[in-house]
Amino acid sequence: MGNSFGHSFRITTFGESHGGAVGVVLDGVPARLELDLERIQAQLDRRRPGQSRLTTQRDEADRVEVLSGVEGGRTTGAPVAMLVRNADARSGAYDHLREVYRPSHADYTYDAKFGNRTIAGGGRSSARETIGRVAAGAVAMQMLDAFAVATGKPRIEIVSWVDQVHTVRAEVDERTVTPEDVERDPTRCPDVAVAREMTSVIEAARRDGDSLGGTVRTVVRNVPVGLGEPVFDRLEADLAKALMSLPATKGFEVGTGFHATTMTGREHNDAFVPGVDGRPTTRTNHSGGVQGGISNGEHLTLRTAFKPTATISSPQDTVTVEGEATTLKAKGRHDPCVLPRAVPIVDAMVALVLADHTLRQLRHGVLP
Amino acid sequence: MGNSFGHSFRITTFGESHGGAVGVVLDGVPARLELDLERIQAQLDRRRPGQSRLTTQRDEADRVEVLSGVEGGRTTGAPVAMLVRNADARSGAYDHLREVYRPSHADYTYDAKFGNRTIAGGGRSSARETIGRVAAGAVAMQMLDAFAVATGKPRIEIVSWVDQVHTVRAEVDERTVTPEDVERDPTRCPDVAVAREMTSVIEAARRDGDSLGGTVRTVVRNVPVGLGEPVFDRLEADLAKALMSLPATKGFEVGTGFHATTMTGREHNDAFVPGVDGRPTTRTNHSGGVQGGISNGEHLTLRTAFKPTATISSPQDTVTVEGEATTLKAKGRHDPCVLPRAVPIVDAMVALVLADHTLRQLRHGVLP
Amino acid sequence: MGNSFGHSFRITTFGESHGGAVGVVLDGVPARLELDLERIQAQLDRRRPGQSRLTTQRDEADRVEVLSGVEGGRTTGAPVAMLVRNADARSGAYDHLREVYRPSHADYTYDAKFGNRTIAGGGRSSARETIGRVAAGAVAMQMLDAFAVATGKPRIEIVSWVDQVHTVRAEVDERTVTPEDVERDPTRCPDVAVAREMTSVIEAARRDGDSLGGTVRTVVRNVPVGLGEPVFDRLEADLAKALMSLPATKGFEVGTGFHATTMTGREHNDAFVPGVDGRPTTRTNHSGGVQGGISNGEHLTLRTAFKPTATISSPQDTVTVEGEATTLKAKGRHDPCVLPRAVPIVDAMVALVLADHTLRQLRHGVLP
Amino acid sequence: MGNSFGHSFRITTFGESHGGAVGVVLDGVPARLELDLERIQAQLDRRRPGQSRLTTQRDEADRVEVLSGVEGGRTTGAPVAMLVRNADARSGAYDHLREVYRPSHADYTYDAKFGNRTIAGGGRSSARETIGRVAAGAVAMQMLDAFAVATGKPRIEIVSWVDQVHTVRAEVDERTVTPEDVERDPTRCPDVAVAREMTSVIEAARRDGDSLGGTVRTVVRNVPVGLGEPVFDRLEADLAKALMSLPATKGFEVGTGFHATTMTGREHNDAFVPGVDGRPTTRTNHSGGVQGGISNGEHLTLRTAFKPTATISSPQDTVTVEGEATTLKAKGRHDPCVLPRAVPIVDAMVALVLADHTLRQLRHGVLP
Repeated sequence: MGNSFGHSFRITTFGESHGGAVGVVLDGVPARLELDLERIQAQLDRRRPGQSRLTTQRDEADRVEVLSGVEGGRTTGAPVAMLVRNADARSGAYDHLREVYRPSHADYTYDAKFGNRTIAGGGRSSARETIGRVAAGAVAMQMLDAFAVATGKPRIEIVSWVDQVHTVRAEVDERTVTPEDVERDPTRCPDVAVAREMTSVIEAARRDGDSLGGTVRTVVRNVPVGLGEPVFDRLEADLAKALMSLPATKGFEVGTGFHATTMTGREHNDAFVPGVDGRPTTRTNHSGGVQGGISNGEHLTLRTAFKPTATISSPQDTVTVEGEATTLKAKGRHDPCVLPRAVPIVDAMVALVLADHTLRQLRHGVLP
Repeated sequence: MGNSFGHSFRITTFGESHGGAVGVVLDGVPARLELDLERIQAQLDRRRPGQSRLTTQRDEADRVEVLSGVEGGRTTGAPVAMLVRNADARSGAYDHLREVYRPSHADYTYDAKFGNRTIAGGGRSSARETIGRVAAGAVAMQMLDAFAVATGKPRIEIVSWVDQVHTVRAEVDERTVTPEDVERDPTRCPDVAVAREMTSVIEAARRDGDSLGGTVRTVVRNVPVGLGEPVFDRLEADLAKALMSLPATKGFEVGTGFHATTMTGREHNDAFVPGVDGRPTTRTNHSGGVQGGISNGEHLTLRTAFKPTATISSPQDTVTVEGEATTLKAKGRHDPCVLPRAVPIVDAMVALVLADHTLRQLRHGVLP
Repeated sequence: MGNSFGHSFRITTFGESHGGAVGVVLDGVPARLELDLERIQAQLDRRRPGQSRLTTQRDEADRVEVLSGVEGGRTTGAPVAMLVRNADARSGAYDHLREVYRPSHADYTYDAKFGNRTIAGGGRSSARETIGRVAAGAVAMQMLDAFAVATGKPRIEIVSWVDQVHTVRAEVDERTVTPEDVERDPTRCPDVAVAREMTSVIEAARRDGDSLGGTVRTVVRNVPVGLGEPVFDRLEADLAKALMSLPATKGFEVGTGFHATTMTGREHNDAFVPGVDGRPTTRTNHSGGVQGGISNGEHLTLRTAFKPTATISSPQDTVTVEGEATTLKAKGRHDPCVLPRAVPIVDAMVALVLADHTLRQLRHGVLP
Repeated sequence: MGNSFGHSFRITTFGESHGGAVGVVLDGVPARLELDLERIQAQLDRRRPGQSRLTTQRDEADRVEVLSGVEGGRTTGAPVAMLVRNADARSGAYDHLREVYRPSHADYTYDAKFGNRTIAGGGRSSARETIGRVAAGAVAMQMLDAFAVATGKPRIEIVSWVDQVHTVRAEVDERTVTPEDVERDPTRCPDVAVAREMTSVIEAARRDGDSLGGTVRTVVRNVPVGLGEPVFDRLEADLAKALMSLPATKGFEVGTGFHATTMTGREHNDAFVPGVDGRPTTRTNHSGGVQGGISNGEHLTLRTAFKPTATISSPQDTVTVEGEATTLKAKGRHDPCVLPRAVPIVDAMVALVLADHTLRQLRHGVLP
């Protein structure tokens, strides 16, 4: 269990890194949604390996095939299934891992839980599983856009970027940053000077057989007021689950996050001021766009922490599957820092949560 | 929607701060579980207001009534419904709030979403809703204990404590801290010297009409290997959702959390070493007890950030429900710092997640 | 598990026949629904025992208490919890059943599954559990009404009646039968002459220590086109589940039902004819208002079979809980025929399914 | 929504009759289940068209491809995705249907609900969608077998057969009928003389441009005691939903079903008698193997009604999509009677329900 996400816009992903294919089924997509397959492919292209020298050189075209639910460029109301075939599966490259547990990987826990670890490339725990999420997220984005058009509201803008790599931190204005700013550099850090610095620490880490972590920051602008379903399906709770379900994530924040704990109520409270459109707005946005688990119309701001990539090429102490001490020296291709490729995945998860809550919210719009 | 939590051990809470009652229904509790009602009441007593001068003076005995699902001290397999009547509902005390939106409260968002805010005491967004969670969590704890006994495993120990209030931080050894250590001081900080300091900053904030936030740290010891359902229902993802669904939470971490982002892979990876019982253990525990979304048998370590209480008695700028600027000066009783009372609620949510995943995991134990 | 029903309008029932209370929690009720508590009580009154000499003389007032989710006569968007206290719990009356399994009751299966049967009055398997369903159904009916008003559509009319008792069958015109027609006679059969006959066979069965079954027929008029979610949540599939989840049901039909199997396609197909309002209508309605799992705007017609009451006062062969042969002679109060009291329960379940599907359907109404 | 089924053994189907593929994703399959792909293919072969002159001549090999979740012949605990490519998609054959609504088909309701009917071959409402169910059911059967072996219980035997075609009824001994008996004749009626008669009425209907319906009867032997989750997920309620979610079904019965309504309690009650293995058994089995929503260890007996195929080649009155009266004369290939091909689909749905409830039941087996 555990391979579905969402209540009213629900996705189910399947597939392993080195099996026949990875994919996703979306249930609950409204009928008659115009679906631009190029936008789906574009998100997958942002995620795929081999984009730059910063990422793994494993080369997969990752072309998506839509198997169902779309006809004549529009959704039919039936489930949308999408598939990406696995290629370049050099499973021999993983033979040396068959007998050892890689530190801070899922090898041991999958083996302990399921009793038959899929060794090659991490199997289901591989980041390759996120292909289905990204494809689904690209559908969610298009639903959000279409709903905005249909209801005469401004388009929701989801922008994630690399905010920090190791100790290198960017300064980015979340009110103005654009997706184009993010795409300008392979690091996906829109702060150009910092991006250069990030590149150099990532390359140094690679040369050193080491790896780095960091944070992805997300802003969502034009969020409608009223998304979120207290008490358990608060907007930030569903976002937390969405992002903490990604491989390698170790922390999540909304608004001022952990820093809020060192502020006083007087400093942290977001004073209301009359808004131009009659809607109350807030002078500050420490809340990060959500109060009481429901969006308040301010920018939704999130931060997600990714640990350093577990695969490193330096030798590491570990044990064999028989429990004997050994030393592992990883071979094969891997990202010294997953942050740049994590950005489109974070975008996708945020879009999925917003699409789900948009549909769940409809019930309250019928009665006067 | 959004008032249920869990897949195989599923709770549904109901009730508002000033309505007739708050409560919870648990579905999926195994039959024949011996249920000690005093243990449930004890957890509610840890949560209730008026415990010490650090907490709100609102006085509610919060006696739980079990309505169903238990007979002769054992669960019957039918849903367990529990009720706590509301008392001391001075709804007049909230009259001055009827026309204004309190900053960083749920007033505005509930009004915008539902169109009819329950004014008195915050309604459904009140921390009083967590009574149902705590009662349910106390059942979950008893299920975990009974399963441990039945399967001959050590009892799972869940210990949460106040780790930080404002800028005051405790030093606590997570390997040894006990529930008794936590209960020793009204702050629920087991570091006695720091607890004194926390008390004084909380009292200063109260005198100053201000409020403070902080963090709760949790350790779970004796977690069985194999809990967690990738890819979406990873153990840390479900914990993140559980904790971020609590009122006032702004951040969540597992293991080294955000700090992991400034470590390199070489530093962060948890080297495996042969364990005494044949199970591989790890030399460090940066992962926080979970790898690939599945518990690895090491201590599960979490940290949850709570913002400063939104209710302060200093004057604040805000708007009326008609959107006009005004100044609010809150009256009524409230906690200047929710952290001490948050501890049993965090314990409860962690227990609920573990109980759910314990049941979900059973499927993999039948086949050889 | 298994105590919740519905996807977007979701109820969870709890309580046993002789515990403290029975009740229900509704999640997903749209905010701002005007709720007439008298309409809820009225449905409960239709269900309660002691209404006439045809039903059990167990006398329970069954007054409903709304615990949450309603303020000022309107729903708040929070879960609606409703409670009915148990009274008249002569559990001593069931002492003689403590050691035997009553034939065709749930005694043995509950015992085998849960290991601790709630003996008195059948516990959770008692028809008393349906109180929560009826209260929830009465809310669903009011939601359907309010949605019809809000969208300018005619009010959905759900009418169920006793169609058959033992071999006595009614002739009722489903196009015109009204709830008032149904309530005219304690049998809830609107065919007056047949109702008299039913009364006399039921009383004869009672005198004879025996019991009778029968069928309830349901027509729903003014069903909007488009309810139902293929492929698994077809409208008739969810109705089948709803009705087959009632105690004592053994069969379910939609439209011509089993009789359709003896017709040819030429006879059974419902020819389309141009409708007065532009909507295609059908010349016949063998389909029973649903085609491809989706309502087509014609009358929805259902039939549900109830077995004869398992409790009879004649002696019966059975075994003790130790597995030894014995003879049982039931004491206590019971209905010789559940059909009259089943009618409001069937109404409730149908309303719940329609309310759920009405909410699920909203997603398809946003895009042009 | 509505394309998933099951709680703990959950399937999601996708695909239309004339799109790229149909398929299914299974979540919750226990790890380490040995999976015989030939058994899956064998069930699909029982379902596929072109098996005999009784079924449609549309010829599709329907070879299943397992995309994920299986390695080295065993399940990995990850979702099992299976795909069958569509072939032989002569969509031109359906051009004449583009402008009319076929009577008693899903054309009109899909169009009304989704606004963009998938015309060719019925799209999602096509029986082709059931391929995913049959493949999933074949996995469920293997899980049930493996669990029986692992727990030392007898193998559950699910046997469905054609019980009635039009007015031709079989006499089959449900205690002894075998899958081999069912497969002996293309009608899937194990009563040889009656099978011949069925063949001749089906062929007559085809010649006459007409179609026939009928019933499928199912017996399940060696059902463990204790399956079923009252109150909503009673075993018979989930079976009713499963079977009423199949295309063309109009009725469902368990045990004596509708006939029970004409029996008295004294006749219908199943007297308990001491069983050879200590388990109480019943002298009769009017209950059909389920009491109080839970299996009692007796044979589970079901009957499902299928209407006559909606596609007939005789001319029919209908309307165009613009609402004008017209006459339709269907072309193309179709089954004059779906009953023979319905048998493996019914088997599959029953297996899915039993597998789900087997997993849900595990929780009650841990505590003493």
